[in-house]
Amino acid sequence: MAARPKTQKTLEDLFYETLKDIYFAEKQILRALPKMAKAADSEDLRKAFETHRDETEGQIERLVQIFELIEKPARTKTCDAVLGIVEEGKEVMEDFDGSEALDAGLLAGAQAVEHYEISRYGTLKTWASQLGLRDVAELLDKTLQEEKKTDDLLSQLAKQAINRKAA
Amino acid sequence: MAARPKTQKTLEDLFYETLKDIYFAEKQILRALPKMAKAADSEDLRKAFETHRDETEGQIERLVQIFELIEKPARTKTCDAVLGIVEEGKEVMEDFDGSEALDAGLLAGAQAVEHYEISRYGTLKTWASQLGLRDVAELLDKTLQEEKKTDDLLSQLAKQAINRKAA
Repeated sequence: MAARPKTQKTLEDLFYETLKDIYFAEKQILRALPKMAKAADSEDLRKAFETHRDETEGQIERLVQIFELIEKPARTKTCDAVLGIVEEGKEVMEDFDGSEALDAGLLAGAQAVEHYEISRYGTLKTWASQLGLRDVAELLDKTLQEEKKTDDLLSQLAKQAINRKAA
Repeated sequence: MAARPKTQKTLEDLFYETLKDIYFAEKQILRALPKMAKAADSEDLRKAFETHRDETEGQIERLVQIFELIEKPARTKTCDAVLGIVEEGKEVMEDFDGSEALDAGLLAGAQAVEHYEISRYGTLKTWASQLGLRDVAELLDKTLQEEKKTDDLLSQLAKQAINRKAA
């Protein structure tokens, strides 16, 4: 079968490609979070990572629902961005193991992940609305709001952790 | 010379490592933006990328100032996250070349970059305040505000572009 000419590609194609990208990313994050929880010094941070792990499972389920709604197979596509962010997080865990700054490093890594997700879900939601996929846009918005809430919580923890060290 | 034990690493060390990471990232972004401007279909998007290129130069100068203020050499450290985001952007440029969805893809890539920067500058600013580096925190905040403004502009362009296609 001949490949479709490139110029025929549509926003629908781009939406599907980006959905596969975030599906891959979420699965990576699901694997990274228990390691981050285990590494965290502070009890609050450990709990935040565990809670976000459970939330991530729900977000993956929502993505599966979206693949069903658009009638396309739920496939992953390697997301170099999230692999890079997770790799940087691993380096911090190794380099700052046993250091007073470990939790600060873990928080920074987690917030980089959240911001990647916020940008992707924001983009996907805009496209879903344009494509007239109202149910899909609603599901994406639910996850987007969760990611923003998690980022806010992590920002609070970052400030608290630092104030505690300073006290 | 023996390596300093890992447990002795401080928030100051983490701050310096993360500064080198974003310094590397900004240099990559400076190189990617003209290519994105050249690829863009819409005149508004091309201009936005060109303006942000100039802004990025200023942000790099600010980082050099910060290295001077903390009296450390201005060095880069490979940032896998930004390499991943830039690589994904390149793929979209190739796969969607000549497609109606190219600008949407370029915008998505640019917003992923902005969000990475927003997370890094937010983190660095929090740490600078904690370390009592008031001048450094102010410089970081200037860049943080610019990145947020750029992200808002890109969100507006994404919605406009889509409405124009729909019209």
